[in-house]
Amino acid sequence: MKNKILQVGVIGAGRIGKIHARSLAFLIPEAQVAAIADVDAGAAREAAEALRIPKALSDYREILADRQIQAVVICAPTPLHSALIEEAAAAGKHIFCEKPVDFDLARIDAALAAVKKAGVKLQIGFNRRFDANFARVRRAVAEGEIGQPQLLHIVSRDPGPPPLSYVKSSGGIFMDMTIHDFDMARFLIGAEVEEVYTQAAVTVDPAIGQAGDLDTAVVLLKFANGVIGTIDNCRQAVYGYDQRVEVLGKKGAAASQNNYPNSVVFSGGEAIRRDLPLNFFLERYAESFVTEMKLFVEAVRQDKPTPVGGLDGRHPVVMARAARKSYDEHRPVRLAEVDG
Amino acid sequence: MKNKILQVGVIGAGRIGKIHARSLAFLIPEAQVAAIADVDAGAAREAAEALRIPKALSDYREILADRQIQAVVICAPTPLHSALIEEAAAAGKHIFCEKPVDFDLARIDAALAAVKKAGVKLQIGFNRRFDANFARVRRAVAEGEIGQPQLLHIVSRDPGPPPLSYVKSSGGIFMDMTIHDFDMARFLIGAEVEEVYTQAAVTVDPAIGQAGDLDTAVVLLKFANGVIGTIDNCRQAVYGYDQRVEVLGKKGAAASQNNYPNSVVFSGGEAIRRDLPLNFFLERYAESFVTEMKLFVEAVRQDKPTPVGGLDGRHPVVMARAARKSYDEHRPVRLAEVDG
Amino acid sequence: MKNKILQVGVIGAGRIGKIHARSLAFLIPEAQVAAIADVDAGAAREAAEALRIPKALSDYREILADRQIQAVVICAPTPLHSALIEEAAAAGKHIFCEKPVDFDLARIDAALAAVKKAGVKLQIGFNRRFDANFARVRRAVAEGEIGQPQLLHIVSRDPGPPPLSYVKSSGGIFMDMTIHDFDMARFLIGAEVEEVYTQAAVTVDPAIGQAGDLDTAVVLLKFANGVIGTIDNCRQAVYGYDQRVEVLGKKGAAASQNNYPNSVVFSGGEAIRRDLPLNFFLERYAESFVTEMKLFVEAVRQDKPTPVGGLDGRHPVVMARAARKSYDEHRPVRLAEVDG
Amino acid sequence: MKNKILQVGVIGAGRIGKIHARSLAFLIPEAQVAAIADVDAGAAREAAEALRIPKALSDYREILADRQIQAVVICAPTPLHSALIEEAAAAGKHIFCEKPVDFDLARIDAALAAVKKAGVKLQIGFNRRFDANFARVRRAVAEGEIGQPQLLHIVSRDPGPPPLSYVKSSGGIFMDMTIHDFDMARFLIGAEVEEVYTQAAVTVDPAIGQAGDLDTAVVLLKFANGVIGTIDNCRQAVYGYDQRVEVLGKKGAAASQNNYPNSVVFSGGEAIRRDLPLNFFLERYAESFVTEMKLFVEAVRQDKPTPVGGLDGRHPVVMARAARKSYDEHRPVRLAEVDG
Repeated sequence: MKNKILQVGVIGAGRIGKIHARSLAFLIPEAQVAAIADVDAGAAREAAEALRIPKALSDYREILADRQIQAVVICAPTPLHSALIEEAAAAGKHIFCEKPVDFDLARIDAALAAVKKAGVKLQIGFNRRFDANFARVRRAVAEGEIGQPQLLHIVSRDPGPPPLSYVKSSGGIFMDMTIHDFDMARFLIGAEVEEVYTQAAVTVDPAIGQAGDLDTAVVLLKFANGVIGTIDNCRQAVYGYDQRVEVLGKKGAAASQNNYPNSVVFSGGEAIRRDLPLNFFLERYAESFVTEMKLFVEAVRQDKPTPVGGLDGRHPVVMARAARKSYDEHRPVRLAEVDG
Repeated sequence: MKNKILQVGVIGAGRIGKIHARSLAFLIPEAQVAAIADVDAGAAREAAEALRIPKALSDYREILADRQIQAVVICAPTPLHSALIEEAAAAGKHIFCEKPVDFDLARIDAALAAVKKAGVKLQIGFNRRFDANFARVRRAVAEGEIGQPQLLHIVSRDPGPPPLSYVKSSGGIFMDMTIHDFDMARFLIGAEVEEVYTQAAVTVDPAIGQAGDLDTAVVLLKFANGVIGTIDNCRQAVYGYDQRVEVLGKKGAAASQNNYPNSVVFSGGEAIRRDLPLNFFLERYAESFVTEMKLFVEAVRQDKPTPVGGLDGRHPVVMARAARKSYDEHRPVRLAEVDG
Repeated sequence: MKNKILQVGVIGAGRIGKIHARSLAFLIPEAQVAAIADVDAGAAREAAEALRIPKALSDYREILADRQIQAVVICAPTPLHSALIEEAAAAGKHIFCEKPVDFDLARIDAALAAVKKAGVKLQIGFNRRFDANFARVRRAVAEGEIGQPQLLHIVSRDPGPPPLSYVKSSGGIFMDMTIHDFDMARFLIGAEVEEVYTQAAVTVDPAIGQAGDLDTAVVLLKFANGVIGTIDNCRQAVYGYDQRVEVLGKKGAAASQNNYPNSVVFSGGEAIRRDLPLNFFLERYAESFVTEMKLFVEAVRQDKPTPVGGLDGRHPVVMARAARKSYDEHRPVRLAEVDG
Repeated sequence: MKNKILQVGVIGAGRIGKIHARSLAFLIPEAQVAAIADVDAGAAREAAEALRIPKALSDYREILADRQIQAVVICAPTPLHSALIEEAAAAGKHIFCEKPVDFDLARIDAALAAVKKAGVKLQIGFNRRFDANFARVRRAVAEGEIGQPQLLHIVSRDPGPPPLSYVKSSGGIFMDMTIHDFDMARFLIGAEVEEVYTQAAVTVDPAIGQAGDLDTAVVLLKFANGVIGTIDNCRQAVYGYDQRVEVLGKKGAAASQNNYPNSVVFSGGEAIRRDLPLNFFLERYAESFVTEMKLFVEAVRQDKPTPVGGLDGRHPVVMARAARKSYDEHRPVRLAEVDG
């Protein structure tokens, strides 16, 4: 049975790299982490020890060269993604890559072409699709439980802004934060967005504005199938991580709520209250990180399509660019305007 | 059409008397309050002015003697209830009487006999039956929506204890407070209770214990149809008036929640919270007070049975006596033991 | 005390006219309905009988001419509003007028000028401000409970579309339905909207589209104080009347839920469920109709400003026009563009 | 670091044995399963393969004889528990044992004496204490968040009755099902129960009654510190696994709700609904099974007291016996009556 276990190499031993490595090491019996690589050799070694991974490397190319390794999980910084995809594809490895694929559409296209040419599988890390709440809403739409969808609302607020250093390199709120919601919008409705209109502001921290970014935004979406949607983003909600969606359809509505560390309701002399929602994404989306990796392993081992393909990685980048252009030009922007 | 409007006399111009008079004066077009009487003539006069009632009396006998008046609403202190019922019945008036009918079973029986002999209608003021929540749960039981009932829980907690003076004359917690829940239990299940077992304590105010009463109690009910029930009473819940019921049946459960002044949920830095529930019974049960009076007026005008009859007033008194006896003797007590 | 009771004349005995007449007749002791008028004399007579109103008239001018009457409640069709306001003001009556004041800004301005000249009070019927939920959210914003507001969402969906005949004369979805939400937006945030952007569609009934109207819309609002808001409207939600708001502020969020006929939760073999929300506005907003009228009576009797003044009636009309223009021209529209 | 990893032997490869083995194998880096034993050698082998456990045994005595193994997890049938505890203690192994320890108090006492004599650690498998909801309620009580407790309610209903064969050997509903709630009651209140009174019935399946057992019960608890509690048990709730607690204290109440597979609320034409709660204990208590095992491993490795000790295993057995005696004799029973 040993030969059926998928041997995986993890590239990047940062926060998300360790999450995926842990899932593969402990929670997915069908896979094993053969090696973990990071330019910070200490980080790689530390992760390897904690997760009982046999090899800690400072050069990811050793992973690509290892014939025992069939798949790689790319958790390096975004600017390296597309090059790593190309190299991994050339090495014949199946690829799981974190989002966003790249800020640049031409580089994404090159990477996708490389994947296609190599005939390897590619899965993009839009983990939220596998969250129990969002998956249930998607099922309600897909199976007709709420009828033809008409309106969509996504609320996606962080507990607090990231460090300014991150803001400066993140590609901006639309590329870094809204990107998940762009994917969610496509996923939930099962159709493409044709046009966006953005209203945005700096209400959380002026320094974010000084860095050229925004911290509060509503993006209005017009889908090809007539659905109208909104995405509400804010870099700071003092009550924590706020992640909700709602779809109105002709036969009903489906709305997800936040997840909580416990269900206890306290009735006191001042208010009826409960503890704050799960905070932050590592807790809120813990299960979805495992599920996406399970499905990647399953897709590779059973030679099935991955649940989130290369184009699923590309579309949200187009949407992010259109959203920013809409803000800059103060007008609705068709996706076709920024693509091609 | 004037001659079809029911002319009503209200006996007692205290808190509950004014509530009923207001319902009759303003909210029930089919009735009018012809007179209101109170030994405190000033209270009667004040109520009459506020509610545009033509006559304010200090002697209720003027109401009984008034041929234009067809029905009376008895809101005098409990010890006067049964005598007033007898007198009103003798005067040929239809009767709405507040709960409890009396602390003494023999006096209740005499009053019910007088009502029967006179052929007038009698309705007892168990208003909670007409609350939208409890009425809905009853409907779920009565119409088989949750199948054959198996278990019942009633939680009934006051925001704070009444004045000690009231405690001393109220007949005790079972006769004053639990009496509503005894009625609710019979109403919801649609069957009689055969036996009770009481566990009770003084946890709120030692002075209540020194006055010979209890302030915290759980009464376990055994119904003739096999249902097992509990009533949870406490004289003080710091979060306010807590009024909930839950029935488990073979096809499902129905559980009512508290009512709130608004539905707003606040998400702050410390907790997710909402305002406290409606507090106290004047707000919580405002609609049910109107509804019970509407149904009384309708029963009289259309010559239909009242929705809460004389025996509905008697049974809870038996239950209250059994509950206290169970506590005193520290054993389960059959209702038959205290009735006869 | 009699001479202090406000004598009111109601103009229009349709649905909303009867609601206000009932509030004044039975629920507001400080006021009396002296007369009700309707071109349909039968409707006026029927309402008068049911509500014990002394005079039923077919000509509203008898009300304006009646010196005993100090205030009028205008519930005639919208196209008559501004003329009636002018006449009533000229007659020295205080005025409560249903929304919208008029479809035409010039006529509104003329009416407001007449009111100002006559020195009478004017209140516009934006009843939802007095709903317990929305009033609580407003209080949270106004008192700083949630800090400086950043984002606003209003969901306002009807259980089903009105008759096509109504659609054709209603002034369109923005003037008829969204008008309430435009007022709500201004009310909740306490600031003016500067610009709107509309995305709208016909998803409910093609006949609505053929009549030149829309039945599904999202209007994006940009407030002068930087808040970004959305209004979600749909003419049909199969689960009933959906009326919710949510405000995110720097210290927290406040979100109201729908109101329900009861709080009972049913746990069955297929789902956990509860009954549908209150449906339709007569039930959902029953209390707010009474409250707005109470406040009007109070404003007149105590010579205080009305809680919803003439400009509060004008602004939403401007917003409705801008929203439609935005849809027609497929671009963001500043309110200044359509006003003046 | 290898030598610090706790080597554990699992005795019993049934459902619960595999759960604990999986936790130890994959989720607790500080422990390893050195061997798993079952009289059914195939079951042991299968579990060993799935969980990468090096040794599958048919005789647990090989585990006791293995010097590398420091701790055992006893998941054998209840009648074997006390003997296994004695043997394991004699072999110097630390012990985790499933509940109930034994039906017989003398045998429990003998087992506890053996543990004491050997100086090994013993933890009893009352996993629910480590559930996030119940742990949070306990914390609210322990830290004074809700003040001095006054009333306790535990609802604990299964989705459906176990097979009759199980019923016949389970020791009865109080020993098998209520045992968890007896522990929960002690845990939440942090005090001992002095007296119980039981009202019980057969409402689910007559065959359970014919087997001498009950399937529906309310047990009334009287705590030494004055708290009054109820436990509501039913072998069948059609909506699934119902596991809730509520504590009223002088400063407030804490009430836990059920856990759900997702948070999605559906609004349809008939009702507002959500999916059924998690069903059954393997899902509902998944995390608590891991947590209790983590704490056992931690207690052994760091030489700390286990969180659920031998007496915690003994008390609920006393309570179960008293509850049955109360039912049989139809009277309140003091725990002292059945202990000693």
